[in-house]
Amino acid sequence: MAAAELTAHALIAQHRPTLDQALEAIRTRAYWSPHPEHPKAYGENGSLDMTAGKAAFDAVLNTRLDLGQPGTDDWVGGEVSPYGLELGVTYPHPDVDELLPAMKAGQRAWRDAGPEVRAVVCLEILKRISDRTHEFAHAVMHTSGQAFMMAFQAGGPHAQDRGLEAVAYAYAEQVRTPGTAEWSKPQGKRDPLTLTKSFTPVPRGIALLIGCNTFPTWNGYPGLFASLATGNAVLVKPHPRAVLPLALTVGVARDVLAAAGFDPNLVALAAERPGEGVAKTLATRPEIRIVDYTGSTAFGDWLEANARQAQVYTEKAGVNTVIVHSTANYKGMLSNLAFSLSLYSGQMCTTPQNLLIPRDGIRTEEGPKSYDEVVADLARSVDGLLGDDARANALLGAIVNPDVKARLEAAAGLGEVALASREVSNPEFPDAVVRTPVIVKLDGAKPDDEAAYMSECFGPVSFAVAVDSAADAVALLRRTVREKGAMTVGAYTTEGEVEAAIQEVCLEEAAQLSLNLTGGVYVNQTAAFSDFHGSGGNPAANAALTDGAFVANRFRVVEVRREV
Amino acid sequence: MAAAELTAHALIAQHRPTLDQALEAIRTRAYWSPHPEHPKAYGENGSLDMTAGKAAFDAVLNTRLDLGQPGTDDWVGGEVSPYGLELGVTYPHPDVDELLPAMKAGQRAWRDAGPEVRAVVCLEILKRISDRTHEFAHAVMHTSGQAFMMAFQAGGPHAQDRGLEAVAYAYAEQVRTPGTAEWSKPQGKRDPLTLTKSFTPVPRGIALLIGCNTFPTWNGYPGLFASLATGNAVLVKPHPRAVLPLALTVGVARDVLAAAGFDPNLVALAAERPGEGVAKTLATRPEIRIVDYTGSTAFGDWLEANARQAQVYTEKAGVNTVIVHSTANYKGMLSNLAFSLSLYSGQMCTTPQNLLIPRDGIRTEEGPKSYDEVVADLARSVDGLLGDDARANALLGAIVNPDVKARLEAAAGLGEVALASREVSNPEFPDAVVRTPVIVKLDGAKPDDEAAYMSECFGPVSFAVAVDSAADAVALLRRTVREKGAMTVGAYTTEGEVEAAIQEVCLEEAAQLSLNLTGGVYVNQTAAFSDFHGSGGNPAANAALTDGAFVANRFRVVEVRREV
Repeated sequence: MAAAELTAHALIAQHRPTLDQALEAIRTRAYWSPHPEHPKAYGENGSLDMTAGKAAFDAVLNTRLDLGQPGTDDWVGGEVSPYGLELGVTYPHPDVDELLPAMKAGQRAWRDAGPEVRAVVCLEILKRISDRTHEFAHAVMHTSGQAFMMAFQAGGPHAQDRGLEAVAYAYAEQVRTPGTAEWSKPQGKRDPLTLTKSFTPVPRGIALLIGCNTFPTWNGYPGLFASLATGNAVLVKPHPRAVLPLALTVGVARDVLAAAGFDPNLVALAAERPGEGVAKTLATRPEIRIVDYTGSTAFGDWLEANARQAQVYTEKAGVNTVIVHSTANYKGMLSNLAFSLSLYSGQMCTTPQNLLIPRDGIRTEEGPKSYDEVVADLARSVDGLLGDDARANALLGAIVNPDVKARLEAAAGLGEVALASREVSNPEFPDAVVRTPVIVKLDGAKPDDEAAYMSECFGPVSFAVAVDSAADAVALLRRTVREKGAMTVGAYTTEGEVEAAIQEVCLEEAAQLSLNLTGGVYVNQTAAFSDFHGSGGNPAANAALTDGAFVANRFRVVEVRREV
Repeated sequence: MAAAELTAHALIAQHRPTLDQALEAIRTRAYWSPHPEHPKAYGENGSLDMTAGKAAFDAVLNTRLDLGQPGTDDWVGGEVSPYGLELGVTYPHPDVDELLPAMKAGQRAWRDAGPEVRAVVCLEILKRISDRTHEFAHAVMHTSGQAFMMAFQAGGPHAQDRGLEAVAYAYAEQVRTPGTAEWSKPQGKRDPLTLTKSFTPVPRGIALLIGCNTFPTWNGYPGLFASLATGNAVLVKPHPRAVLPLALTVGVARDVLAAAGFDPNLVALAAERPGEGVAKTLATRPEIRIVDYTGSTAFGDWLEANARQAQVYTEKAGVNTVIVHSTANYKGMLSNLAFSLSLYSGQMCTTPQNLLIPRDGIRTEEGPKSYDEVVADLARSVDGLLGDDARANALLGAIVNPDVKARLEAAAGLGEVALASREVSNPEFPDAVVRTPVIVKLDGAKPDDEAAYMSECFGPVSFAVAVDSAADAVALLRRTVREKGAMTVGAYTTEGEVEAAIQEVCLEEAAQLSLNLTGGVYVNQTAAFSDFHGSGGNPAANAALTDGAFVANRFRVVEVRREV
């Protein structure tokens, strides 16, 4: 690394304090983030401000994003923003028989660099991404359909936090075993047996990141950085409709690797043509030893069953439930729920779908409310939240694809519509499909309704499911988590016994529970360094972002021992 | 736990210092063990001495080992010691439809006890097993065929060390996340967002331990204690020829659990009739969420492919290689290798099989030695080691089953025999099948020989494979580890370049390397708290005993968050 522009020494000096803070944060799980959430915080110390970020995004449109990868003489593109814009960017469509061997070439030096240097190189990648947060925000917005502010925060600092969290876990895991040890076993009166031992974390091989449409960076960074920080090369296969954010990420990673004296081919992009289905081919290649995936249950299950040569980490579909049993803050509950249902048009894997409400109504600090009243009040609360079109656009974003729109339209036929979806026009992007959520009444006791509430209906669709009692709600919660999985569970109750019963179900079925949220934290949001994203213990996901299990099997430790 | 004979407080007071020492040992990987290796160390403070241990073993022969499990009105047995003794013990053959639900009944209290109480309960189990080490030694000897001293050490203190090591890793992993956290996110001029969070390690469910014939306790304890310490119930399915050591273990565990106020059914035994193949049925039950297995590659692969509802940890077959390139201590090398080939008749998963020796000979401090000389000298060394029948019996133990004997006999037909196997008579156990190892010369350049040296030939069979050069040896080592897996690799070389090449192969193929061992440490032995057993990164095993990855996915963390 003599000729490297970035020396290990300089990277450690710059980033080690941040790494140490991240290590402390995952231990205490108190609030912490080094990545500012406010758009105005950017523009100094080399970061792009709002104008420069937008200009950078505009400059990449209608260009070929040539990452300098081997094995590329074919270029693919075709992203169309949910806001209508054709991005016009083309990306490498590599010959993997050429690319994969090239990705292995630099692995030895990357392995030999050790956990600390790998961690600070990853932190430098994240730092440069952070500096371009405004540019990434537009890239995430125009691929996911998130509104700008959400694309900025969830696609920027929150995604960077998740990446940093993965680096911290990866580093901590690798240094649990020391680099060397002196072993001396007493032998009574004879000399002790003595050995010198060295322990080296070694990578699995090449990791494959299969990106998703809705959160390309947020859902992609944990796996990408966990694999890279543990010494693996990483091949990024983005969703064909959300290539740009990950292509920019790959570009930054390649630049930093090269600047630090490593082979840039340790991180590469494999874009594909729509419908090409290259993920199946890649995921089963013998060189691929790790797969990270976010998306449908069907393909996640396929990967787990077929990519047997690899460690497979999946986040799939689930059915998220909120039990509405009783509350001491009725208005707070309604506004909190309304926001959760509306944010990004319910297109989050964490958005509540089934609201379980006793058919006899609930107790509140305003007195009893009937089932119909609760549903009507919630509908009014959503209406109020989204009544202003500007605010609605800022919260809802755009419908990400026609399937979501079709599901939304079909949902009205599933039961009595308590809140109809309405079209919202977006003056800035007239082609954007913007819709408010629909709330449909279902009956937990009607077998005909079960097919609806026991399936994931991804998008701005919620079901107000009438249940017989708290016990009935708890039983349905258990069945839903066990059979369908859940990324989140919410509950509102003022009764200790009910709370205990709900908590027990979540402990037994391994679901993450938010209780009585009435303020500015929502069931569908998690914070890196403190909250786990999913549990990895129910059918919605086999991994939690991020914990020890998410990183510990991405590398192995090789021991060399010799006599002293 | 009010009425418990063992209080949590007392258990913590007694065992926490040992747990802390184990935690320190896995961090430094220096030598440590709380379990004495010398038979004479036992007999005080409640532990059984040699005579009492033998008497306890004798007392269990020809009895029904009634563990008091639910769902048992059927009893099976039929173990015959490799030393000839019919054990005559019968064990529960449970109705699993009754047993499995009973095993779940106590899980909530076990979960709620938390990581520290679970750890010290596990340590109390290990303490009581340790006190009965002399009894277990006979049980291991008369099921595995190990000689007494090896059964005593490997089946006793070394197995207990591995169990304790698993408890330490399990505890450390569970307390990486705090039990509670206060989270406060600044909101500029507004009040911060504040949440109180609780984090609870929750078990996967019921774990299944599928025991092996040769090392029932050593290979069984890591999985058993890792699962139990992380809150799971554990169903133990021993090998039909090695039930007693694990049945005694289950008995101790049940006693301690009950004494500590927990449900004894958290640990249970499922013995089977020979050929019943109950492991397949059990491993695919929905209640079984973890499987630990040591045995054949075929069944290990089957488990990985079919027990999809479970986390599956397997140790399978491998082909272990020693490269003999050059040495500065020829006699030390020969005696070290002779011991490694002889110990327990090569019936260890870690025993070297292929000795790769340049056909042009090797350099030693005594001058050059031809390939033929090296092989002849090694044969002489083995002969010398095993020349005395008493010593031979003490080292070799007995052949564990007729398949091993058949392979040994067939091996002589695979090539030129450099050292013939001989029968050793055992005056104490005339029915024991005791054989010295065979060494067969093969040629790495002959395609006909490849089938032999590229397959595991489990038992006292070694191949002296002539290779063209050091580079040829290194290439064959790589191919063997990559295609067949290896639990161990050994090498003798005085040349830095050759050493570096061998080390690089081991790093790239994830194999554990012992270099230039000439003294009292052998390539086939590993020490808990310091050495990993296998790497989990090549086809011989998908897990290393014991590391973070071995424990991290046996539980999940459930978070409950609420507004302050």
